[in-house]
Amino acid sequence: MDEQSAAGLGTGPSADGPDAAYRAGALDLLGLLAYGALTAFDRLAEDSRMAPGLADKVQLAVMAGQQVEHFGRLRSRLADSGIDVMAAMRPFHEPFNGFHDHTRPKDWLEGLVKAYVGDGIAADFYREVAAFVDADTRALVHEVLADSGHVDFVVGRVRQAIESDPKVGGRLALWGRRLVGEALSQAQRVAADRDALTSLLTGTVDRPGLDLAAVSRMFSRLVENHTRRMAALGLQS
Amino acid sequence: MDEQSAAGLGTGPSADGPDAAYRAGALDLLGLLAYGALTAFDRLAEDSRMAPGLADKVQLAVMAGQQVEHFGRLRSRLADSGIDVMAAMRPFHEPFNGFHDHTRPKDWLEGLVKAYVGDGIAADFYREVAAFVDADTRALVHEVLADSGHVDFVVGRVRQAIESDPKVGGRLALWGRRLVGEALSQAQRVAADRDALTSLLTGTVDRPGLDLAAVSRMFSRLVENHTRRMAALGLQS
Repeated sequence: MDEQSAAGLGTGPSADGPDAAYRAGALDLLGLLAYGALTAFDRLAEDSRMAPGLADKVQLAVMAGQQVEHFGRLRSRLADSGIDVMAAMRPFHEPFNGFHDHTRPKDWLEGLVKAYVGDGIAADFYREVAAFVDADTRALVHEVLADSGHVDFVVGRVRQAIESDPKVGGRLALWGRRLVGEALSQAQRVAADRDALTSLLTGTVDRPGLDLAAVSRMFSRLVENHTRRMAALGLQS
Repeated sequence: MDEQSAAGLGTGPSADGPDAAYRAGALDLLGLLAYGALTAFDRLAEDSRMAPGLADKVQLAVMAGQQVEHFGRLRSRLADSGIDVMAAMRPFHEPFNGFHDHTRPKDWLEGLVKAYVGDGIAADFYREVAAFVDADTRALVHEVLADSGHVDFVVGRVRQAIESDPKVGGRLALWGRRLVGEALSQAQRVAADRDALTSLLTGTVDRPGLDLAAVSRMFSRLVENHTRRMAALGLQS
């Protein structure tokens, strides 16, 4: 990551200068992640009801519980900055709800692919943005996005299903592509609405952001990781 | 609690003597609590979808997340004793599923009353049983059953609803009585099926259990606490 190092948000002396813009962007990122965790909890809990057995249900329940734990940490961090999590999440209701409304898993396997592929590309993108905020915020972002050992579970289950019925692979590959399309469409919406968040990436008058080449490199990284995840599932991206 | 003090389970030298019976009872209790936590997660997550607003939804999501955390601690504890949580939970699938199938909240308020009144009387009973197991197990049971500050939230919401529409009170009072009836019916089923668990309370040849007077005092305590909870909600028990 050569574009830019930590911005030292909230620690600078001038509250109205560039620091204020950084700060607003960082708070947006935390609000977005908090609402993302809450909707992920909701979805994982709902998907856990489609589990073919109790052991699978337990896995998803544990994943859902982790999302609540992440939510709690983001809420505490926002509270430390005097920000109410409910207010911080508000701008992100529509894009997240829109994404989930358009990508309701029809079955257990679609839910698993969504939890791995959809959340994976989103997490990669959040980590890219987090490269531009202060070190503490960045550390928190990385912690709440860290994979908690559930990848093996998802990959194992999906590969198993494709092995016993190869047709499943074609359907899930389509599903994976649709997830990415919907995610990008909602990301554009957020980018258009939230200047502070966007300007973390694009820069402001006072601070140069990513140039076109850097943006293109970022997209390459996102696509590369996505392709890697699809391949891990045995799916064509 | 004058009936009996800690039994020092699992630390005694004879694995086939009275200690083995204690141990089986304690493991049953942990399995029961683990499955209880898992189904409570499931139910709270489902109820959170009926929340009238996002703040209410967050409250229930946090309560659901705590159940997953409790489940994780019970699972670790069972694993320390070489017991697989999935096996330990199996005997309790039917009674818990039966209870939940017969007490599906029709709306948000019924869900809240169930989370407070239903779980309340169950927790009281588990604590009574825990008086007969070793100190470590007892401490864990008390921790996973501790109220985590959500009582105020539930009580506040229910009282508010009754204030704005007193008819609601009559309906919820009936609901509360039904919850207790269903809980007792499933508890009897467990008592009939699980000798090790039951004999924690009733004693064995080697160890005197509760006499009739003590059982009656225990029931008085359960009813008293239940009445107190219903009254806190503004409901007649």
